[in-house]
Amino acid sequence: MTSYVDNGTDNPNAKRRKLEVPSYVALTTHPTNQSEEVKLNWGAKSPKERRPVIGQQQGAVPRNTIGAHGGSYSIYKALAVATGSLDPHYIPNLHNTEPPFEIPPNPSWYGDDTYKTIMSMDPWGHIIKDAFADELKKGIDIRPTIAVTKAHIDVPEIIDFVRKGEMKPDGEILHENGKISVGKAAIDPVWYLPGLAKRFGVTVAELRQHLFQHTNGMFPELLTRTDLDVFLPPVGGMTAYVFGDVEAIADPDRKVAVRVHDECNGSDVFGSDICTCRPYLVHGIEMCIRMAQAGGVGIIVYFRKEGRALGEVTKYLVYNARKRQEGGDKAEEYFNCTANVAGIEDARFQSLMPDALLWLGVKKIDQLMSMSDMKYNAIVSAGIEVVDRIAIPTDRVPADAQVEISAKVFHGYNGGGVYKVTEEDLKKVKGRGEKSQRSWRRRKQ
Amino acid sequence: MTSYVDNGTDNPNAKRRKLEVPSYVALTTHPTNQSEEVKLNWGAKSPKERRPVIGQQQGAVPRNTIGAHGGSYSIYKALAVATGSLDPHYIPNLHNTEPPFEIPPNPSWYGDDTYKTIMSMDPWGHIIKDAFADELKKGIDIRPTIAVTKAHIDVPEIIDFVRKGEMKPDGEILHENGKISVGKAAIDPVWYLPGLAKRFGVTVAELRQHLFQHTNGMFPELLTRTDLDVFLPPVGGMTAYVFGDVEAIADPDRKVAVRVHDECNGSDVFGSDICTCRPYLVHGIEMCIRMAQAGGVGIIVYFRKEGRALGEVTKYLVYNARKRQEGGDKAEEYFNCTANVAGIEDARFQSLMPDALLWLGVKKIDQLMSMSDMKYNAIVSAGIEVVDRIAIPTDRVPADAQVEISAKVFHGYNGGGVYKVTEEDLKKVKGRGEKSQRSWRRRKQ
Repeated sequence: MTSYVDNGTDNPNAKRRKLEVPSYVALTTHPTNQSEEVKLNWGAKSPKERRPVIGQQQGAVPRNTIGAHGGSYSIYKALAVATGSLDPHYIPNLHNTEPPFEIPPNPSWYGDDTYKTIMSMDPWGHIIKDAFADELKKGIDIRPTIAVTKAHIDVPEIIDFVRKGEMKPDGEILHENGKISVGKAAIDPVWYLPGLAKRFGVTVAELRQHLFQHTNGMFPELLTRTDLDVFLPPVGGMTAYVFGDVEAIADPDRKVAVRVHDECNGSDVFGSDICTCRPYLVHGIEMCIRMAQAGGVGIIVYFRKEGRALGEVTKYLVYNARKRQEGGDKAEEYFNCTANVAGIEDARFQSLMPDALLWLGVKKIDQLMSMSDMKYNAIVSAGIEVVDRIAIPTDRVPADAQVEISAKVFHGYNGGGVYKVTEEDLKKVKGRGEKSQRSWRRRKQ
Repeated sequence: MTSYVDNGTDNPNAKRRKLEVPSYVALTTHPTNQSEEVKLNWGAKSPKERRPVIGQQQGAVPRNTIGAHGGSYSIYKALAVATGSLDPHYIPNLHNTEPPFEIPPNPSWYGDDTYKTIMSMDPWGHIIKDAFADELKKGIDIRPTIAVTKAHIDVPEIIDFVRKGEMKPDGEILHENGKISVGKAAIDPVWYLPGLAKRFGVTVAELRQHLFQHTNGMFPELLTRTDLDVFLPPVGGMTAYVFGDVEAIADPDRKVAVRVHDECNGSDVFGSDICTCRPYLVHGIEMCIRMAQAGGVGIIVYFRKEGRALGEVTKYLVYNARKRQEGGDKAEEYFNCTANVAGIEDARFQSLMPDALLWLGVKKIDQLMSMSDMKYNAIVSAGIEVVDRIAIPTDRVPADAQVEISAKVFHGYNGGGVYKVTEEDLKKVKGRGEKSQRSWRRRKQ
């Protein structure tokens, strides 16, 4: 198998790239003459001026981004090429893949407002076949970075509400058998680095330098190709679920309910009772359905930011430290435990989160199912009005999750009049304990 | 803010690294004298000989891996440094983070058998405080790549079984209120490239070249640092859930039930009825509990390989193509639709999957809750005996998921005598349809 000198380009230097790094660096250090022709003009009003996001060089057309399509799944695609199971030249057949419903352009899709213009995804990513029809006709390999579809979903808790008569089927949004009709969009990250740098209050050079150095040298083009402003990072994306009529989002006379949810696999999928993640997600879905049934629309955006974007390994280490600390798991040490293990309490960068809401055209949120001040501040900074902040009903909070919710409310989360935590309360709240045990080594002795 | 010239090392060249790529390349092209002292000896029997996985250079000790800790979350950590919220010098405080139960060493943790020796995770990753106590005393920044903890989980479907009396609480594994006691381990990917290359049947040079080129230049050290054999890739990891007595895994007289589950967020979290993912996961949990209650042990391993490791955007594009194709969604076109969009049907590389089972010490699986031949073949190739393959009960398969299961059974999935699909059946099975709609552009006209 010698396909490894075939890097999916018609570049005459491809063979010389093989294992010679200096020539590779030479190839990527300097912009090619072609790159000006495809340079992305982020914020341009029309897709024609903005130009398509091109994630892979092919033929005479170079990429206009750093990184690769598919977020972290680009690694698996590379393995597929390595094993000969994927042709690196393959161009997706996008026949019949178009969205079954519309998410039309709105003013946040263009412009250069640091917070009110989309900076972390490609707003045209779901309609490339319309927006870049001419380029596709020319055979340019443009790929959707967003996919929109419809689904029927079965949420056991909602089915139970229907069974108990606590929620009434309407036959359109919520069905007799408890099924829910939704529209949904999967969104891959597309980062406009100058825009991100502004939101983070750092220079673009600093952002690029740190992204490169503190990932131990990932994507040298972050330093060498300063002509490329857009980065396709190997991180998880997000998924937006819409309940009810999507056109209600843009209608000032109709109400919008929103839950922006950060992934917590242990709770969302397996129902771990140490946190309120799945209970809050289910409460969000319930409120979205009720809002849609009342003539408005509900939106859940699910962000792949496991364990506050520190990952699940860090999260479990923190659980152990919390359970075993002097005096047991207590609200007052909740945030310190994470900072001890990770050096930081939270790495979710909520300032990126509102882009998904801006893309959908959200201008006003009548019901925000979240108590997080970080989320609230990010949303308001994006120019989205928040009317009501809805706290999770107290009876939905698992006993062992009292530590989490008390700590969060005390540290500025909005208790919505339902949750109040004084310094005294904070000291009182305890969770289940956990004792350590002998190690395999000590056991052997 | 000038902390961006501080790259978290004591390297005197750090400042010169700033934006000068040639010097950076010089720094990483050649092994340092130190690297021999910390070189990982993958497969060595004792942790002392194997040496610790070091993911970040600090002080005089260089990293002995390519990539960064935390999988894809390394990107968020880099953002945290860029914004000044994380000190790049921070060394985790691991006090009290040890596993609350043991996963002791077993012969698959060392050796060089292509399939029977762990190649895609660090078997010592959860017990670094024991295994590398001396190195930690010296102040070397060694980080766990695995974290083990305990949890109580609430799975609505299981709570419903208890309510209906279909499952009997035992007070230890399954409680009166339907809560389930589990042990769990979060595992980050740690890839020994020579081992992966062997499993994939390619040369290490080919694997490194493709990983580098088909991610558009990620980690040049894949080419320049051939002295580093271990890669910390920016992909999601996996989570192992253990039901019942973990010591039963190694006991030949006690039975083991296993479900190896690949992430499907749309079904696992939101209950999308187009596939059998959550139903199969819940069936797996149910069978694991029953096995544990019968004196055995149950294991669920959850792999972060969304949409067959092609990602959720590709998955939704395929859904649309399936629903809209000539004649509607049909089993006979199930796999073709994915291949049309992605160029490949599946990128999950199940040959990596058994490592998690080997790590836990699984030698025999009495009940494997999976119909997948790819999973079965990978497990058997790892030297693990499979006694029974359990198909999902037919009444757990959503109506719209008949297309998926029929296609899979016809293409070699094991129907366990319950599912039989002839070519005639295959042509008959249809799912819900979906019509296209006018685009925003055509609508404007």
